[in-house]
Amino acid sequence: MKNSFFSRFTPKEPKFFPLLKQLSEVLVSSSAVLVESMQHDKPEERSSYYKKIKDLEREGDRLAHLIFDELGTTFITPFDREDIQALASHMDDVIDGINSCAKRIAIYNPRPIGDSGKELSLLVQKEADYICKAMDELDTFRKNPATLREYCSKLHDIENQADDVYELFITKLFEEEKDCIEIIKIKEIMQILEKTTDSAEYVGKILRTLIVKYA
Amino acid sequence: MKNSFFSRFTPKEPKFFPLLKQLSEVLVSSSAVLVESMQHDKPEERSSYYKKIKDLEREGDRLAHLIFDELGTTFITPFDREDIQALASHMDDVIDGINSCAKRIAIYNPRPIGDSGKELSLLVQKEADYICKAMDELDTFRKNPATLREYCSKLHDIENQADDVYELFITKLFEEEKDCIEIIKIKEIMQILEKTTDSAEYVGKILRTLIVKYA
Amino acid sequence: MKNSFFSRFTPKEPKFFPLLKQLSEVLVSSSAVLVESMQHDKPEERSSYYKKIKDLEREGDRLAHLIFDELGTTFITPFDREDIQALASHMDDVIDGINSCAKRIAIYNPRPIGDSGKELSLLVQKEADYICKAMDELDTFRKNPATLREYCSKLHDIENQADDVYELFITKLFEEEKDCIEIIKIKEIMQILEKTTDSAEYVGKILRTLIVKYA
Repeated sequence: MKNSFFSRFTPKEPKFFPLLKQLSEVLVSSSAVLVESMQHDKPEERSSYYKKIKDLEREGDRLAHLIFDELGTTFITPFDREDIQALASHMDDVIDGINSCAKRIAIYNPRPIGDSGKELSLLVQKEADYICKAMDELDTFRKNPATLREYCSKLHDIENQADDVYELFITKLFEEEKDCIEIIKIKEIMQILEKTTDSAEYVGKILRTLIVKYA
Repeated sequence: MKNSFFSRFTPKEPKFFPLLKQLSEVLVSSSAVLVESMQHDKPEERSSYYKKIKDLEREGDRLAHLIFDELGTTFITPFDREDIQALASHMDDVIDGINSCAKRIAIYNPRPIGDSGKELSLLVQKEADYICKAMDELDTFRKNPATLREYCSKLHDIENQADDVYELFITKLFEEEKDCIEIIKIKEIMQILEKTTDSAEYVGKILRTLIVKYA
Repeated sequence: MKNSFFSRFTPKEPKFFPLLKQLSEVLVSSSAVLVESMQHDKPEERSSYYKKIKDLEREGDRLAHLIFDELGTTFITPFDREDIQALASHMDDVIDGINSCAKRIAIYNPRPIGDSGKELSLLVQKEADYICKAMDELDTFRKNPATLREYCSKLHDIENQADDVYELFITKLFEEEKDCIEIIKIKEIMQILEKTTDSAEYVGKILRTLIVKYA
């Protein structure tokens, strides 16, 4: 049925925007769990937050693949299919980054990471919120791109802030921390958090490309 | 000659499947060498296994680029060219992962890695075997996708197993190992092995996409 | 205006080659700053070199995105748009690698890295020079691919040299360095340098693909 001759031509665009929105909501949820997890340092708490985030990561994966499957079987798409694919797969990257971070906190079990960890995870959450709001602009930005453009510029600014937080933190970590094993653990966790803010900014770059192409 | 007007239109599909099969056989061989290498801990043995795997990695690279070149000069392909490209480049990624792992074992020369290393490398080998079998389905799955679908699901299951092996291992490593330099070495090697099982599962995801698109 | 019906069809090819050339010049500049930075070990010098390289990295980013935007709004391109996109984004990757390296030197502030660091950064610079020269061949290689082919083979050779330098260095590092924190710092910096030589070779692979497709 799905692949029958006619169904392939039936306009299916409306499906893509709700699916992208749903994916962005999973991103928002997992960033919120990450922020909350940063308040807790007991091993069993860390494992339980990781479990929650892992479930969200699987849900994100499922949605991303639903989108890819739709793209593979739909002839008419609201944007070039590479653009939709890029949006889905890069939102999924942000969720993967959050999952990687929670996983390492659970299995490395480092000493409390401190304020910079909380700060970076809050920046990831802010980015997730802008990405989620941006999904609401997908069917209107061609006529009015100002709002979407603003979200992209916010994503860019937040990523720059994250860079500064990260660089200052690592400089201090190497100056002050003398326990090599803690350095290994915390450096890697912070590196992944910082990369996750990059991935979120990358979603903003794709959105900016859409504005250039279609608005 | 190769690029002449007519040769470009001559159906060339039959070339792609044998080339993909050959690439998957290189993958199987390098995974087998990796498994064997895990039984040996002397520096000179490690170097010699790395040499073997490096040669296979170059052969894989050569085949992948042969496929890309064919794609660049062939007009008619059995699937969308992105799909063939994705299959070749992601099989190549798995081979690269195996090579990265063997390289680090040779140049880091860590203490014996133990059972979890053997276990993960056996999982990579299992995945390689399923990928290789999957290549035999490429010209028949449109009519009968059941077997290919089964291989994809096996790849998915194996990757989940690998995750569990890895997470348990790293948790223990940080609890028990106190030699920081050994932690650096072994953590990175195991991380690469685990990523390699991800890359193999990714080949399964591409195959699943082919089923959705064409079966 | 930019997206008006006619402007989209106006041949715009000439823009792509100068933009790619400019991007390659940014790459050359940043590799030169990296080489120079390797002569200096004081924290404030390292920070100041990082600042210079970061500025160049932003300029590279700007140019790459200019190219992507042009691709999104231009109908006629001198090569398939994926090829131009791949060239720009992979040159950008090399610049990113240089930036990552300088950033880590600044924020990790390791002991002097020694001759192998200088050697690897000189290899990156050599590769940057060949990539920059290769950009001059883009509008002539269809008729005479010999020069471009030679540059690609140079890029391949340099990458092999870099592999050897890196592997020897890391083997020695683990045999001789006993300060775990210095190992963490220097291993990561050298790893990034080595990856950067890979990224540069990857640009050569794209160029080789162009020869296969168009010459």
